[in-house]
Amino acid sequence: MKIGVLGTGTVGQTIGGKLVSLGDEVKMGSRSAGGENAREWVKKAGSTASEGTFADAARFGEIVFNCTSGAGSIEALRAAGAANLEGKVLIDVTNPLDFSKGMPPTLFTGSTDSLGEAAQRELPGAKVVKTLNTVNCDVMVDARRVAGGDHDMFVAGNDAGAKAQVSEILKSWFGWKNVLDLGDISAARGMESYVALWVRAWGALKTADFNIKIVR
Amino acid sequence: MKIGVLGTGTVGQTIGGKLVSLGDEVKMGSRSAGGENAREWVKKAGSTASEGTFADAARFGEIVFNCTSGAGSIEALRAAGAANLEGKVLIDVTNPLDFSKGMPPTLFTGSTDSLGEAAQRELPGAKVVKTLNTVNCDVMVDARRVAGGDHDMFVAGNDAGAKAQVSEILKSWFGWKNVLDLGDISAARGMESYVALWVRAWGALKTADFNIKIVR
Repeated sequence: MKIGVLGTGTVGQTIGGKLVSLGDEVKMGSRSAGGENAREWVKKAGSTASEGTFADAARFGEIVFNCTSGAGSIEALRAAGAANLEGKVLIDVTNPLDFSKGMPPTLFTGSTDSLGEAAQRELPGAKVVKTLNTVNCDVMVDARRVAGGDHDMFVAGNDAGAKAQVSEILKSWFGWKNVLDLGDISAARGMESYVALWVRAWGALKTADFNIKIVR
Repeated sequence: MKIGVLGTGTVGQTIGGKLVSLGDEVKMGSRSAGGENAREWVKKAGSTASEGTFADAARFGEIVFNCTSGAGSIEALRAAGAANLEGKVLIDVTNPLDFSKGMPPTLFTGSTDSLGEAAQRELPGAKVVKTLNTVNCDVMVDARRVAGGDHDMFVAGNDAGAKAQVSEILKSWFGWKNVLDLGDISAARGMESYVALWVRAWGALKTADFNIKIVR
């Protein structure tokens, strides 16, 4: 499958690398083509990896992952171009983290908006599905590294078919066992707000290798 | 033990009732003494239950639970009186829920403050411990009703001794098995932000009888 990955940071490299290892063709997109991060990743990832601009990656992908930093996320989607993402599933894993006041970071969206909703507003023709932002990137692509995979991932989005497809991707590609549908894209607020708890638990546990399991 | 409970809503009634059933003397505090909620609760709860003003309950308690509604929380603490809470452990279970725009509620504190921190600022001489706000009140006082108690509660506060005392209360009175210390009172931001995810999960699960367990 042809997949676009927006963002050349740790999250983009981890997801992109996993997808290449699964046999997908992956184009990593950045503000400008040929950046050092992207070129190094391509060299390391394998022969089905390539890189270009945000627009190149968006055009290339049948599915696109948004792995940009929260602060630059919407600008990156604008550069990727609504036409290049029209009708496609956009998997949004971003978090609105503000590190400007030191650690732990705060969230810059407030509680009546989210980056997931902002992405959907920016790209009304794309099918935005919020997911994976609630765990560290190593856990995103390998759920079994934590407690054998016995914990929960969430999805939120306006398109039921897109959420079903993303849930299947999470399960068959990344090893997730439990995927809970939280509703429309406004539920991204809950998933992004949770990250404020995640960073505190990370501080207390001294590891990012954890997740939550909903128990009843 | 003599315990003050601020707030006459479902949370205050549930916590107060549990404490009476454990043999504690409990005074429920409200804006004005003799309100209907408080009088009915006293009648139902048993002979060691009583009611009065916020100040009465704060003065009475060796330990005080703040179970007021988020929007009225700080005003209630002001009415309770700093002198009446000086040196005491204040267990803050409030959430900054804003229902004014319908369901699900949003949070009114933003991500750079919390009701836990606001309570500690209002009462510098009290030992504020944030806890229990991450679950429904039935689960608060009976952790075993969910998955036999195999899930997590958090505490945050500036006083290590107070947190240890509250952790012991959670375990021995309310059946909690796992209590994770998230750090100083600013970690209340994480615990209160999480509630935005809780309300979405509540909507998806169609039950409030759930909690999260951190798995590693």
